[in-house]
Amino acid sequence: MIRKTEDSLILHTDLYQLNMMYTYFKEGIHNRHAVFECYFRNIPFKNGYAIFAGLDHSIEYLSSLKFAESDLQYLKDTQGYDDDFLSYLRDFDFSCTVNSAVEGEIVYNNEPIFQVEGPLAECQLVETALLNIINFQTLIATKASRIKSAVGDDIVMEFGTRRAQETEAAIWGTRAAYIAGFDSTSNVRAGKRFGIPVSGTHAHSLVQAYRDEYKAFKAYAETHRDCVFLVDTYDTLKSGVPTAIKVANEMGDKINFVGVRIDSGDMAYISKKIRKQLDEAGYQNTKIFASNDLDEQTITNLKMQDAKINAWGVGTKLITAFDQPALGAVYKLVAIEDEHGQMEDTLKLSSNAEKVTTPGKKQVWRITNNDKDNKSEGDWVSLASENPRSYDSLFMFHPQYTYINKVVKNYTARPILQTIFQQGELVYQVPTLEETREYSRIQLDSLWDEYKRDLNPQEYPVDLSQKLYDHKMTLIHEIREKYSRE
Amino acid sequence: MIRKTEDSLILHTDLYQLNMMYTYFKEGIHNRHAVFECYFRNIPFKNGYAIFAGLDHSIEYLSSLKFAESDLQYLKDTQGYDDDFLSYLRDFDFSCTVNSAVEGEIVYNNEPIFQVEGPLAECQLVETALLNIINFQTLIATKASRIKSAVGDDIVMEFGTRRAQETEAAIWGTRAAYIAGFDSTSNVRAGKRFGIPVSGTHAHSLVQAYRDEYKAFKAYAETHRDCVFLVDTYDTLKSGVPTAIKVANEMGDKINFVGVRIDSGDMAYISKKIRKQLDEAGYQNTKIFASNDLDEQTITNLKMQDAKINAWGVGTKLITAFDQPALGAVYKLVAIEDEHGQMEDTLKLSSNAEKVTTPGKKQVWRITNNDKDNKSEGDWVSLASENPRSYDSLFMFHPQYTYINKVVKNYTARPILQTIFQQGELVYQVPTLEETREYSRIQLDSLWDEYKRDLNPQEYPVDLSQKLYDHKMTLIHEIREKYSRE
Repeated sequence: MIRKTEDSLILHTDLYQLNMMYTYFKEGIHNRHAVFECYFRNIPFKNGYAIFAGLDHSIEYLSSLKFAESDLQYLKDTQGYDDDFLSYLRDFDFSCTVNSAVEGEIVYNNEPIFQVEGPLAECQLVETALLNIINFQTLIATKASRIKSAVGDDIVMEFGTRRAQETEAAIWGTRAAYIAGFDSTSNVRAGKRFGIPVSGTHAHSLVQAYRDEYKAFKAYAETHRDCVFLVDTYDTLKSGVPTAIKVANEMGDKINFVGVRIDSGDMAYISKKIRKQLDEAGYQNTKIFASNDLDEQTITNLKMQDAKINAWGVGTKLITAFDQPALGAVYKLVAIEDEHGQMEDTLKLSSNAEKVTTPGKKQVWRITNNDKDNKSEGDWVSLASENPRSYDSLFMFHPQYTYINKVVKNYTARPILQTIFQQGELVYQVPTLEETREYSRIQLDSLWDEYKRDLNPQEYPVDLSQKLYDHKMTLIHEIREKYSRE
Repeated sequence: MIRKTEDSLILHTDLYQLNMMYTYFKEGIHNRHAVFECYFRNIPFKNGYAIFAGLDHSIEYLSSLKFAESDLQYLKDTQGYDDDFLSYLRDFDFSCTVNSAVEGEIVYNNEPIFQVEGPLAECQLVETALLNIINFQTLIATKASRIKSAVGDDIVMEFGTRRAQETEAAIWGTRAAYIAGFDSTSNVRAGKRFGIPVSGTHAHSLVQAYRDEYKAFKAYAETHRDCVFLVDTYDTLKSGVPTAIKVANEMGDKINFVGVRIDSGDMAYISKKIRKQLDEAGYQNTKIFASNDLDEQTITNLKMQDAKINAWGVGTKLITAFDQPALGAVYKLVAIEDEHGQMEDTLKLSSNAEKVTTPGKKQVWRITNNDKDNKSEGDWVSLASENPRSYDSLFMFHPQYTYINKVVKNYTARPILQTIFQQGELVYQVPTLEETREYSRIQLDSLWDEYKRDLNPQEYPVDLSQKLYDHKMTLIHEIREKYSRE
């Protein structure tokens, strides 16, 4: 067990980043100006949009990048880096400019969502951790948005800690879900750390500990004002619900009989029976909570069966993004200073067509139509030097199928990438979590319903500016020429 | 941003645990002796066995359970707990006995793999975090074991940090993979913290930074002795490999031309072409590394196509357990002290048959046959008070299909659950990670091949002792009687 060593996220990077930094440093090009951009190629869950999250943890990470002496010693011992390089690392002080989508923003595939610009070696070091954080949190926020969409105005609670992929996934995942519209979490640590409302009453073990459902419910009611009784430990309809009602009758005004919860069985059938039992006992306002491997599909299905469920506890399927547990965002060099101090745009070819990158430092503009309720017309990806606000009309075309195109007039263009760090200094005024959540809700409202369907949504247009498109084609051609000749 | 608050894992629990603790405390039963057991119902990936992992992090967690004043204040503000209970939490000192499978042990479904015994309220607090840790790490170790089995004696490296579900999943996941036979990790932090060998050379960005493959490879070679060149930035066969060879020729003895890596394209076809190019240039010992969404299936498939790949970098599919990203281990109360100070075994019924628990404090015995090379005959789950070593022969039968049974003689019975904490004190001599990895390898050797097939393995027998089986049936009957009458 070497775990007692000093531990921070500064070494939370792939070894190849450090090996490349070593080469850059020894060759004297580590401070050349570079621009890296992060994007993903496919929206997860075949959803029509993604919700960006992970910026808060990224800011925390980028604000604390210091090598400890034990880190340097470790690198010296295992990699044999020389003292000059270790000195450089010892003095490491993150000085990049970071532009990013803000948390809760709607983002799409094949557009930059995060951009790091500054000394080549610094940009390289932070790639791995940033992708680790943003990939996961954006994935979960997107999954949560789908589930929120299925529950509508019902309560939806995050219950997944025990099935999360280790401890950080539990708390950052539940935070991402809260941004996307979840109402609460069961994780108390996340509640304290992020200010998310916490929820939860009791488990089967309470009933087992008393070895009697009545005694257990009564004990809980004697010690808590708000009561949600878990009714399926022995027999939901014959024992659980009648016992909950008995205890509620006995306690009267001393408790709020908020609800009963079921965690197994045929939920459509049982929930209707429970509703009848509660109503007949005069508890029309007592809610039925359900939990048991729920996701947007099972919820939609239960609703179609007219299940009488008012509050949904969602665990495993959300917190692991069970049906697609990884987002594949990548981080690619798009521009680099050459030996003469000139910035040169760069791309990576690949035998996999979709792995060819788009060169140059970019901005993403969300184009909304002033004549159509300010709904989105699409995103317009341009070189950072372009400004669609200076045009009267915008020619928007599909970057692969260029014959799919349109001219948009009377539009508003909003830049998606905001400056977070300016040469290493945090300049972004970080909003509260509540503000972020509300921001995300408003953004989603401005999106046409066709993009929000959970099944087969319309593809949202993410178009390249004519300049950017031409630039990419020229560069592909140049590189193909050069490397197929060899 | 409330993240600047004190943060530890003590609140990394579901709110209902604390609410139950509050009830127990107010009712004066929080110190009643209880036994909880953790088990899972299905082996992940339809594998024939699982590899237990997560004990190390669990020990770290259980060794540091202290409430900070800010934790208590938070609970008071949000939950309204009274001062007596907050005092109890302030003085909280974990005093349970913990028995567990050791890391690297082979474990199966429907047998306890972790057991917590002690004051009821203490057992309850730790449920969530323990499941969070053990579920994930056991899942990844099992997935890694499948992948290791597919690669055989080739090198297999963990490359998944950027796609892991947040930061802790990356490092604990790669540790679990190492236990199950992986050779190295790309995560430098995991290397430092756990002593895992780290690997990685350079990415596409190095080539892009030089905007020239030759200059990039040359620069890398000038600054590193061991070189693995990534050859698919522009054109693998026309440019990447020839350039790598050219640089290796120029550098001669100054470098070890360890390998070339491909990260895209048709790997079967390309790897054969690369092998030919390398061999013809005299580099028969230079290896071909591959990475690109690999898992046990793609690896097996590439091997069947006679792909010339010697080293496998596995990322996303391993670190997220992509095809089944959660293990569903649960933690159930199996025995509780009653009001007279007597221990009573307990179970939970359910309309889902597989959710019915097995009552009583148990031990798991691995039965190996002394006449058959000490290979496993099955696991025998007994009440903790039973000892199969005192019998001459063992009657083993399937717990559902009891007509499937056998009598085993001349066997060795090895207990799987080891004492880790004795009344809150760590008594387990924690092995090194290398010892754990070697232990796991040896255990896997003792398993018949039929259980190790990656597709449709034979079901390994996990049997109940006659006493335990009879006890469970009696208890089910008693509870059914009681609750169906009401």
